[in-house]
Amino acid sequence: MSDATYDVLGVGNAIVDIIAQADEAFLAKHGLAKGGMALIDEAQAHAIYADMGSAIEASGGSAANTIAGVASFGGKAAYIGKVKDDEFGRIFAHDLKSIGVTFATPAAPDGIATARCLVLVTDDAQRTMGTHLGACVNLTPDDVDADLVAASAITYLEGYLFDPPAAKEAFRKAATIARGAGRKVALTLSDSFCVHRYKDEFKALIADHIDILFANDDEIEALYGHRDIATAANDLAAQVDIACITLGSSGSLIASGAERVAIPAAPISQLVDTTGAGDLYAAGALYGFSRSLPFAECGRLASLAAAEVIQHYGARPLQPLAELA
Amino acid sequence: MSDATYDVLGVGNAIVDIIAQADEAFLAKHGLAKGGMALIDEAQAHAIYADMGSAIEASGGSAANTIAGVASFGGKAAYIGKVKDDEFGRIFAHDLKSIGVTFATPAAPDGIATARCLVLVTDDAQRTMGTHLGACVNLTPDDVDADLVAASAITYLEGYLFDPPAAKEAFRKAATIARGAGRKVALTLSDSFCVHRYKDEFKALIADHIDILFANDDEIEALYGHRDIATAANDLAAQVDIACITLGSSGSLIASGAERVAIPAAPISQLVDTTGAGDLYAAGALYGFSRSLPFAECGRLASLAAAEVIQHYGARPLQPLAELA
Repeated sequence: MSDATYDVLGVGNAIVDIIAQADEAFLAKHGLAKGGMALIDEAQAHAIYADMGSAIEASGGSAANTIAGVASFGGKAAYIGKVKDDEFGRIFAHDLKSIGVTFATPAAPDGIATARCLVLVTDDAQRTMGTHLGACVNLTPDDVDADLVAASAITYLEGYLFDPPAAKEAFRKAATIARGAGRKVALTLSDSFCVHRYKDEFKALIADHIDILFANDDEIEALYGHRDIATAANDLAAQVDIACITLGSSGSLIASGAERVAIPAAPISQLVDTTGAGDLYAAGALYGFSRSLPFAECGRLASLAAAEVIQHYGARPLQPLAELA
Repeated sequence: MSDATYDVLGVGNAIVDIIAQADEAFLAKHGLAKGGMALIDEAQAHAIYADMGSAIEASGGSAANTIAGVASFGGKAAYIGKVKDDEFGRIFAHDLKSIGVTFATPAAPDGIATARCLVLVTDDAQRTMGTHLGACVNLTPDDVDADLVAASAITYLEGYLFDPPAAKEAFRKAATIARGAGRKVALTLSDSFCVHRYKDEFKALIADHIDILFANDDEIEALYGHRDIATAANDLAAQVDIACITLGSSGSLIASGAERVAIPAAPISQLVDTTGAGDLYAAGALYGFSRSLPFAECGRLASLAAAEVIQHYGARPLQPLAELA
């Protein structure tokens, strides 16, 4: 893949996170399933925000977090996603460009505001999310720059892109161009609720269009109806080049052909906010895959990046991952 | 003071912080004196932001941070400050109201945007700030609600209010009303550079209008030309009811009449970002003073609040201070 201009191109929902602590009664009051990502409309977003505590704001978006992580490792990274030209949109663009990510998707000059995700962190550091998709609904296939996709060793797509209807078509276009250019296509299943929404489509995608897959144990269960990781790894390894199955504090498993590499979680000194753990795991793994590192080393970088991000609020690394590595 | 509706009313510049890591070369390149607060215009704010790294956003403003701390201790708190009705203005208002602070200053419907402070944190956890005052220049004496001031046991004013010209008049109006209602007036000198800008005015204020004063060792030096804390404490105690002199990791000194109480710093497990240390010290002290607690206990709460805020990014407490206390 050494002829590629970019190691990894991410395509995803471009979102700014609004992060606050909350208790389980708050989640119940607002009908949010703990640990999940629920789609909320503008009125719900206003109602929950008005009721939630003092917050901090930080750029988010699953694939964007991953791309920020790839750049933080020193990888050459690019991103496609839709914001509006408003305060949050400018923050989102700044936070990618400032770390060297190519982000050229034009911001919508008007219309619905940049997407926001209300991230509620409970005392156990688990995060529960309510996402108002905002300007993400305006991402269309026209935003997928064919040259950019063809110039990227890996195009990384988030399952959440299936929520805004036009973005699903952008997803398919990017995957088709990448495969046609002899590049790799990576997918994260994103969230167990998201898998339930699009299970059959995701199964068909995995069988036919995906080279590298990321899933956690909950998403595996949503996809296959069981939590037998060894069996799931066998099934996935028969369909994709590389499958990464994350298991929270138990580490992860990388499966490729007949190879199975068990990856330990990296040690942490304090667990603060699990937001971004899966996204940053993918960052380390994709950086390693793009540089053709051994799976054990890809897994080490993945665990290390996930460990960094769960020790503070926010889903982007605060320390340069290249230094930690 | 038991007839007061509010324990503490803060009056200050209403600001949202944009926080990123930076190195000393970055500060030098942009002409920012390490550890200080520089006023920057809109063009400078754009230039520095475009050049700085990936950031997080959090409500700030010195007196507002203090008021958030008072509320976090369980105090009855109110705030006067000027935002615009824009994204940052709504964030600022939310973050006060959500923790029970009365914040009724009308947002400007148009004009200059809500103030922002670019907070650059170096590896030693020191913060250097560039503030674009934005909508704060529109705070006028009309925004000072006389009933609110008269209903507050302590009105707390930040020295930074002397930077926007109309706010200085709002400051004087609030102090005059508070004294006239038999209430206490507290002042923080804010910053050594700020003291240099308004030294003679601050000296006259302290002599004639202030009951409770907060200053750190740098501000003492800016005011008096020396760092002899014992002498400064004597001079200040002759002019105000209570003087609190903070000395960073060496703790602080509370001086009142002939009484001198040395307060140790509270232990911390990690030093991340010193932004807000002085503001939260003032929160603990003011909460204690408003409840007529012994000085040693006021100082303990002050040190505890400062310790909480320097162990994470952002200048507002993330843990309820009432629980920590």
